[in-house]
Amino acid sequence: MLEREAATERLRAAKAEAGVGFAELAETVGRDEVWTAALLLGAVSGDETEARALCDALGVEDEAVVAALRRAPYRGEEETTIPSDPMLYRLYEIPQVYGDAIKACVHEEFGDGIMSAIDFECHVDRVPDPEGDRVRITYEGKYLPYKKW
Amino acid sequence: MLEREAATERLRAAKAEAGVGFAELAETVGRDEVWTAALLLGAVSGDETEARALCDALGVEDEAVVAALRRAPYRGEEETTIPSDPMLYRLYEIPQVYGDAIKACVHEEFGDGIMSAIDFECHVDRVPDPEGDRVRITYEGKYLPYKKW
Amino acid sequence: MLEREAATERLRAAKAEAGVGFAELAETVGRDEVWTAALLLGAVSGDETEARALCDALGVEDEAVVAALRRAPYRGEEETTIPSDPMLYRLYEIPQVYGDAIKACVHEEFGDGIMSAIDFECHVDRVPDPEGDRVRITYEGKYLPYKKW
Amino acid sequence: MLEREAATERLRAAKAEAGVGFAELAETVGRDEVWTAALLLGAVSGDETEARALCDALGVEDEAVVAALRRAPYRGEEETTIPSDPMLYRLYEIPQVYGDAIKACVHEEFGDGIMSAIDFECHVDRVPDPEGDRVRITYEGKYLPYKKW
Amino acid sequence: MLEREAATERLRAAKAEAGVGFAELAETVGRDEVWTAALLLGAVSGDETEARALCDALGVEDEAVVAALRRAPYRGEEETTIPSDPMLYRLYEIPQVYGDAIKACVHEEFGDGIMSAIDFECHVDRVPDPEGDRVRITYEGKYLPYKKW
Amino acid sequence: MLEREAATERLRAAKAEAGVGFAELAETVGRDEVWTAALLLGAVSGDETEARALCDALGVEDEAVVAALRRAPYRGEEETTIPSDPMLYRLYEIPQVYGDAIKACVHEEFGDGIMSAIDFECHVDRVPDPEGDRVRITYEGKYLPYKKW
Amino acid sequence: MLEREAATERLRAAKAEAGVGFAELAETVGRDEVWTAALLLGAVSGDETEARALCDALGVEDEAVVAALRRAPYRGEEETTIPSDPMLYRLYEIPQVYGDAIKACVHEEFGDGIMSAIDFECHVDRVPDPEGDRVRITYEGKYLPYKKW
Amino acid sequence: MLEREAATERLRAAKAEAGVGFAELAETVGRDEVWTAALLLGAVSGDETEARALCDALGVEDEAVVAALRRAPYRGEEETTIPSDPMLYRLYEIPQVYGDAIKACVHEEFGDGIMSAIDFECHVDRVPDPEGDRVRITYEGKYLPYKKW
Amino acid sequence: MLEREAATERLRAAKAEAGVGFAELAETVGRDEVWTAALLLGAVSGDETEARALCDALGVEDEAVVAALRRAPYRGEEETTIPSDPMLYRLYEIPQVYGDAIKACVHEEFGDGIMSAIDFECHVDRVPDPEGDRVRITYEGKYLPYKKW
Amino acid sequence: MLEREAATERLRAAKAEAGVGFAELAETVGRDEVWTAALLLGAVSGDETEARALCDALGVEDEAVVAALRRAPYRGEEETTIPSDPMLYRLYEIPQVYGDAIKACVHEEFGDGIMSAIDFECHVDRVPDPEGDRVRITYEGKYLPYKKW
Repeated sequence: MLEREAATERLRAAKAEAGVGFAELAETVGRDEVWTAALLLGAVSGDETEARALCDALGVEDEAVVAALRRAPYRGEEETTIPSDPMLYRLYEIPQVYGDAIKACVHEEFGDGIMSAIDFECHVDRVPDPEGDRVRITYEGKYLPYKKW
Repeated sequence: MLEREAATERLRAAKAEAGVGFAELAETVGRDEVWTAALLLGAVSGDETEARALCDALGVEDEAVVAALRRAPYRGEEETTIPSDPMLYRLYEIPQVYGDAIKACVHEEFGDGIMSAIDFECHVDRVPDPEGDRVRITYEGKYLPYKKW
Repeated sequence: MLEREAATERLRAAKAEAGVGFAELAETVGRDEVWTAALLLGAVSGDETEARALCDALGVEDEAVVAALRRAPYRGEEETTIPSDPMLYRLYEIPQVYGDAIKACVHEEFGDGIMSAIDFECHVDRVPDPEGDRVRITYEGKYLPYKKW
Repeated sequence: MLEREAATERLRAAKAEAGVGFAELAETVGRDEVWTAALLLGAVSGDETEARALCDALGVEDEAVVAALRRAPYRGEEETTIPSDPMLYRLYEIPQVYGDAIKACVHEEFGDGIMSAIDFECHVDRVPDPEGDRVRITYEGKYLPYKKW
Repeated sequence: MLEREAATERLRAAKAEAGVGFAELAETVGRDEVWTAALLLGAVSGDETEARALCDALGVEDEAVVAALRRAPYRGEEETTIPSDPMLYRLYEIPQVYGDAIKACVHEEFGDGIMSAIDFECHVDRVPDPEGDRVRITYEGKYLPYKKW
Repeated sequence: MLEREAATERLRAAKAEAGVGFAELAETVGRDEVWTAALLLGAVSGDETEARALCDALGVEDEAVVAALRRAPYRGEEETTIPSDPMLYRLYEIPQVYGDAIKACVHEEFGDGIMSAIDFECHVDRVPDPEGDRVRITYEGKYLPYKKW
Repeated sequence: MLEREAATERLRAAKAEAGVGFAELAETVGRDEVWTAALLLGAVSGDETEARALCDALGVEDEAVVAALRRAPYRGEEETTIPSDPMLYRLYEIPQVYGDAIKACVHEEFGDGIMSAIDFECHVDRVPDPEGDRVRITYEGKYLPYKKW
Repeated sequence: MLEREAATERLRAAKAEAGVGFAELAETVGRDEVWTAALLLGAVSGDETEARALCDALGVEDEAVVAALRRAPYRGEEETTIPSDPMLYRLYEIPQVYGDAIKACVHEEFGDGIMSAIDFECHVDRVPDPEGDRVRITYEGKYLPYKKW
Repeated sequence: MLEREAATERLRAAKAEAGVGFAELAETVGRDEVWTAALLLGAVSGDETEARALCDALGVEDEAVVAALRRAPYRGEEETTIPSDPMLYRLYEIPQVYGDAIKACVHEEFGDGIMSAIDFECHVDRVPDPEGDRVRITYEGKYLPYKKW
Repeated sequence: MLEREAATERLRAAKAEAGVGFAELAETVGRDEVWTAALLLGAVSGDETEARALCDALGVEDEAVVAALRRAPYRGEEETTIPSDPMLYRLYEIPQVYGDAIKACVHEEFGDGIMSAIDFECHVDRVPDPEGDRVRITYEGKYLPYKKW
């Protein structure tokens, strides 16, 4: 059985060799660019069609890789920690600064509940701007009210 | 000198008593709802007009509060940690799961740099959906390429 | 504005003085015993009826307490940590020992997704047993499949 | 001597190749699905019959694997930490939110003691629901009162 | 309602003023010295007789203290940590050095299970020795085999 | 030079193959069962006679293993942490609950000092009990008073 | 695909063998010494010219190394931690001691914003001094005011 | 005796009321702006002249404050941690990204030693730039070679 | 009962007011300067004569302070952590750099055992040096060999 | 290029085989025993003479080892942590207990500054004592006053 880490390593190498981008792979797989990157990098699982499409696009002909892409992965690290890479860190700095405000606005608009991180999607977009283009990252998840019983 | 924590406490109490929402306060202040919540909760500083508008809207007539809102605050906790409140936690879980994919897509689209968390804005919106409305949180920051020298 | 911690302190004292149990309070509030305890202890929010019922049952006649019970609380600690109290600790030891097995069984039965901790309820029951009664704690949450996009 | 980690790796691979589920293995072993998964994944030990049944069902004919399954394992990580995988994390989030309420209800019903995590069993079940099936995880352990001396 | 910490503070002060030792208090309460110290210091709960005996012996005539002693306490800190006080630290250093050996001997003698820390007692004794008296700390807990199901 | 970890691995494998228990090995070595287990598992060092006796008893004829057993080891982990394995964890839970009481009793009986963890021995014993046998773990160390100067 | 860590290892070895310093390499690459060291050590990415210049100067003729130098790296460790190496530690000790003062002076001079660590450069210089030469480390980054929206 | 924290609080309030900046105070005290801010904020100690000059400039006529400013302070927090405030955090992010390169350049230029953080000074300057002014933070410390003995 | 922290606060204030140094107090108490400082600061306990001598020398006429000085204290923090104050930090940096070498030399000279930190004394001395006086800190503790049993 | 860890491993093995002690090696190298141990174990760097002398004395004829000994090492771990090995731990326990007293005495004797850990030496000595020999560890570093600017 091929562990998911090994499959990721294989796919990253194949992508580097093929010189193909996530945007292009996403079209082949029929999914968004972020989701496709998450599939290749080991954060989500795909069905057989998606897994095979990704492997085919990268010339990886190995059923073990397809199988690895279909298994539910262990997501994230073995501990809940904050990484030091600056691009990643900014994604943690934002809720450290604006988290209370976001929480307050969500509760005021929706009530006592949360934004799901499972029934969820996210996108990365370029917003042209004369003073320098901007990165837009959109988190969108189903509102889940706290159940009472 | 009134510490920012004390000003926040005063303003939260006044808002609760006034029964007014962040959306309404945001209109008075002339800013977005999230930014206005961040101002009230102590994560950003405002200029005199903004600070006074917020205080006036909540009936807080105290120059010390206005002054506190104008000072650059200490943002976040004294340590870089991940909170356990589920609404807040989801904002950290998302980069734990999708962070590598987001980083990869940003680098592929923009090059080696980051999304600024300072020249930055974020929004909370409701996305109506027949299967349950959705929370959309938008992060948008200037792309900053790594400088070489 | 009465902070939730202060409201909890008031209600705990009133409950101790009244000598009434959570089971009895739960009947008055019209909810389960665990949820009612969570309301009193500050982990969930109630609507006006529930908040008032709890306060009335404990002879706490203070609108500020009712209001505090209705606000979405900050749940848990400011950090994600494991407490040392043995009764609490067992609830963390169980997923440390059986977590991988539970994860595997959930994925095998349901697919790649999670048990919601928001659209969720839990119960504490006594299971009579001649060799010593047993505590049964039931977690039940909606299955949420990972969305693809 | 085959370390338990190596035995787990062997058994996971064999299971993936055999395409057999934990439910089916559990019937062969004569135990519950969660316990059987815990045996395969290295969290519990079995007697000779159980260990051999599991190995036979997966076509692993190696006495060293049988022996490894019979030894008391090191359970969990080398540190007490909270993992970031969302399915696992929810099992820690629940006591962070409802732990105090559960503790209070256990003490009120049983007195000053705990639910054993050793004289303990747990189950994963599907609860059909028209609004989406639900995952039920049941923890059941012997009540242990604090001894006095 | 008197919090347990406040009760502990009251009792420690009364004990210091009375100049009475734990050994003497233990005789009055009818329990071991360690358990009696644990009761006074907030780690265990007593029944009405025990609580009242301790209070009477120290001249604390306050029903709120008696009530506090009867409630199940929060044991230990809010986090699982190792303290730096050398007398306390040694109790953690010993399992860091000898823990694996103790675990191995318990499993070899008893099988796969643990020593209960709940159905448990411990004693502190002086062992006279011409080269310097020795401290003997005895941990004794019921053997609990891992249940299978 | 054979590192101690490698020597431990060799000895654990040899013991598993030989099917001999620590009690029996202890008789051969002429030491207690816990100390002998600590020697085999890498927590203490032995003299040449002890090291050779252990190796001979297990059929390990390698001077490098004898030499490794004679060197002062690094004891414990590279950090002071609390492990999650339940049998080990109980040894940390006990001082979290009863540590203050033990400290108080030691100081009351002996004065301001500690129980040595170096001039120290510990034992694991079975205490027969009709309601289930009990594990007795005895810590015994020289009392060391704080020196003044 | 050659991972960046492997490329770093190759380049460090080549530099040691060639006996060439960062100052000299910097001239070849056409960049500052610190940036060039950061490129070789894996903290920044270069364009094709820079990457090739570095490899050529060190006699590393391998397109995979050039390619590795051009990819955006993971910067820093997987956790935000403070290292114990004394030269590195001083760079953390300085903001622990003077951080509040630096923050205050930046805010007073510039307003509520930060010094960018991305649109940023740093230099290491020797300052001759009769009482012992001094190390000057200059951090210079674009001032980024907090955006309002 | 006035604790340093209390003195800081007094001086911060006086400075806010007086509406005077660190640059101006620095001239009065006869020191750099960063050092003067560090004195006011509790990170360094001054001699009597410096302490009195600062107090006088802010109208704080209290010998206890002067005395507090003259005592060697506890610098930083009780633990070595990284704060989340973004302006402060950047000062830690820089060595996380560039620390290895800085260390390499220092060793190459000076040998095996460090930059002192005690025989040390730092400055904050504005560097005008048409694309946006820049913050320059200069660390300068005596080079200390590792002593051999 | 006066807690030790409160006694320390009283004594520190009295010492500051009296303007007397630890060296002088040490002579009065009849102990070393470091031990006397440790007594005043709450790290060690004294007998009645020592406690009274210290209080008398500082003009603190309060039996509760004398009593507090005689009780065995909680030494250090509630967690084992490394402080950021540079003078304190150096005491931790030294074993981080030289700890392995010290451990090796102790074992080579004495065998497998430790330097006691209880049957221990330490001194702070000035060593005149034309290139700048030096601080000498001497740790001296009884060698304790690991006991076997 | 031979990494320092690999060089250490080589030298430790050679020393074990040669059966030579640090005291003897120190004479050959012409340095103190602790410094020589630090050189062999990877905590300090030597010049060519010292490096070669150590290698020659141990019969390690490999220029790569000599070269490795001459490079400035990474000192300590990647994180600032406290190890659990008891001999090492005591070196951290001492400043936890006596650190405040040492800091106070240094400041009183020398002023506001620190003992350098770089312009520093340390020694391990045996102090004969009829009640058991004692270990003396001497830290001696240049006094560095805090610079003002």
